[in-house]
Amino acid sequence: MPQPLRFSKGGKNLPVVVGIGDDASVLRVPKDHEILVTTDFSLEGIHFRQEWHPPESVGHRCLARGLSDVAAMGGEPMAAFLTLALPAKLPQKWVDQFLRGLLKLAKRFNVQLAGGDTAESPHGVMADIVVVGSVPRGRAILRSGAHPGDRIYVTGQLGGSAAALALLRSGKRRFDPKNFSSHFFPEPRIEVGRVLREKRIAMSMTDLSDGLSTDISHLCEESGCGAEIREEAIPRARIDKRREVDLDPALHGGEDYELLFTASSKTRVPNRIAGIKTTEIGEITGGRRLTLRKASGVNVTLEPRGWEHFRS
Amino acid sequence: MPQPLRFSKGGKNLPVVVGIGDDASVLRVPKDHEILVTTDFSLEGIHFRQEWHPPESVGHRCLARGLSDVAAMGGEPMAAFLTLALPAKLPQKWVDQFLRGLLKLAKRFNVQLAGGDTAESPHGVMADIVVVGSVPRGRAILRSGAHPGDRIYVTGQLGGSAAALALLRSGKRRFDPKNFSSHFFPEPRIEVGRVLREKRIAMSMTDLSDGLSTDISHLCEESGCGAEIREEAIPRARIDKRREVDLDPALHGGEDYELLFTASSKTRVPNRIAGIKTTEIGEITGGRRLTLRKASGVNVTLEPRGWEHFRS
Repeated sequence: MPQPLRFSKGGKNLPVVVGIGDDASVLRVPKDHEILVTTDFSLEGIHFRQEWHPPESVGHRCLARGLSDVAAMGGEPMAAFLTLALPAKLPQKWVDQFLRGLLKLAKRFNVQLAGGDTAESPHGVMADIVVVGSVPRGRAILRSGAHPGDRIYVTGQLGGSAAALALLRSGKRRFDPKNFSSHFFPEPRIEVGRVLREKRIAMSMTDLSDGLSTDISHLCEESGCGAEIREEAIPRARIDKRREVDLDPALHGGEDYELLFTASSKTRVPNRIAGIKTTEIGEITGGRRLTLRKASGVNVTLEPRGWEHFRS
Repeated sequence: MPQPLRFSKGGKNLPVVVGIGDDASVLRVPKDHEILVTTDFSLEGIHFRQEWHPPESVGHRCLARGLSDVAAMGGEPMAAFLTLALPAKLPQKWVDQFLRGLLKLAKRFNVQLAGGDTAESPHGVMADIVVVGSVPRGRAILRSGAHPGDRIYVTGQLGGSAAALALLRSGKRRFDPKNFSSHFFPEPRIEVGRVLREKRIAMSMTDLSDGLSTDISHLCEESGCGAEIREEAIPRARIDKRREVDLDPALHGGEDYELLFTASSKTRVPNRIAGIKTTEIGEITGGRRLTLRKASGVNVTLEPRGWEHFRS
C-alpha cells in the first residue's frame, strides 16, 4: 500500500485554519462570501489510462476538473480534499508523481490540499477531488441566468483535448504530452471567471467539461431557453501545433475546461480576458430548441452528443 | 448502471442556496462562522459487506461517519456531498435502500444532500461522503487543546459496534440489526458536541471512530501530552440488550462514534448531556506516555490497537 499523502496542517493566516490532523478541516471564509463546493471522480479506465497518461497529468487533471467548476461559478478556490483508492501493487513512484502534478497546479492557484482519505482499491486507481471555493454573496454566476437575446461566448479553442484522445486511441504514434497540453495539462480559467464576475459581464456560465453541445444543453435547461450556435464561429483548437481539429471534437468533444458564458447583447465583451481569447459563437433564443447554423446558412437541430469518456 | 441520485436543488432560505444542477453548489455560511469539511470513504469489503449489512445501514453509516466528525469539532452540519461508484450489476433496489438510509439520517439533522458524482465501479461499492458544517469563528474544538491535569471523558458506552462485528464474523447467528444499533445505525453526537462547545466544557475533542486506544493516542499526539486511562471506568456497551462487552472491544474497538473529550479539572461536567451519559475515564498527563491503570492498581502501557476494519 502506498504511503499516506502529505496534507497541509493549516495555519492562522491561511484560508485553511486547521488542515489534516483533526476530525475535520476548518476553513476561514472571506467576509460576506458564500462558499462553493464541487466534487469530481477520476477513475482509471474511465477518465484516464496508465498507459496513456503520465501520473503528473492524472494528478493535474484530477484537480483541474474541480478548479474549473469553481472558475465556472466566478469563484476563487480555497482548498482541496483528495480521497484516493489505490491498488496495493501500485508503485509509490506513481503516487508521488500523481501528487506532484496535483500539488504543482494547487500551488499555482494558492489552493491548499487540506485533507482527505486513502484506502486500498480492489481494482484501479480512483480519486475523488473536492474543491471548496468562495464567491461574494449572491454573485455566483449560475447556469440559470441566460435570457433570449443574450450572446453566447467561449474562451480559448475547443476540441483539442478530444482530438488528442482520438490520437491516443488510434495507437498510431507516441506523444509528447507537452504538445497536447489542452488534454494532458488543461488550464482552469479561474482568472477569466473572476473578471467575468467582477465586471458583471457574464449572465450565465458553465465550463466545457462534457463538450459544447452537451454543456450548452445543460445551460439552456437550467435557464429555460434555447440556443443557436454558428458552426463557423466555433474556435477550433490546433493540435500538435499544426492543423485545426475537425468540427466534431470542437462541437462534442469534452474536457477542454474552457468557459461557456452568455452576456447581454448590450454588454461589450473584450476580445481577450486575462490573456485568453473570447469568441462569440451564437445567441440564446426563446423556446427550448438547440440549433446549429451550418456554414451553408441552413439551421439543423443540435444534438447533445458530448463526451462520454473512454470506456474500456 | 443504477439511476442517478436525487440531490437537493437548494433554495433561497436554505443553507444550500444552489444544489445540484450547476458546476458547483453554493452554501451560505452563518455570519462569523468558519466552515468545517470532512471526507470519508466507505468501501465494500473494508467498511461493510453486503451479506452482513442491510443497504439502509450502509447508507446510514456512510453519512454518520461524516456527521460524527463535525460533532467532534463542536460544529453544526450544513450539507453533504456523495460520490458513489457502483458495480453495473448492483440492483437499483440496493441503491434506493442505501439512499433511504442515508437521507433518513440527513433529514433528522437538517442536512441537505447537495451534490456529488456517480460512476461505474469495476468491483464493489465505493462511497465517498463529504460533510460541510459550520462553527463560530475560533470556536472549533480541536484535538490539540488538551493539557496535563485535564480529565478525560467519553459519551455513551463503548465496544458495542466491535462486539456486534465479532458476532457477524463468527457467522454463528442471524441478527436483528435493531438490537445492535450501535453498529448498524450509530448515532452521531451532534447535539452533545454543540453543548460541549456552547458551554465551553470541552478543551479538546475527537470522535471514537478508530477505537479508544487509537483515538486517545491521536488526541495526545496533537496536544503533545500523555494520558492515563482507568480500565474500570470505561463504560462498556451491552449488546443484544444483555451482557456487557469484554474490555478488548471497549478499549480497541472502533466505529462507536461516541465523543472523547477533555475538560479542566475545575469544570463541572454534567453526568448527562443532551440525554447522553458522560463518563470520566482518566486524566491527561505530562510526558507522552499512554498508560492503562488496571483494576489491580497496576499501570501498564496502553498500545494503540484500534480498529483496522475487517479486511477480506
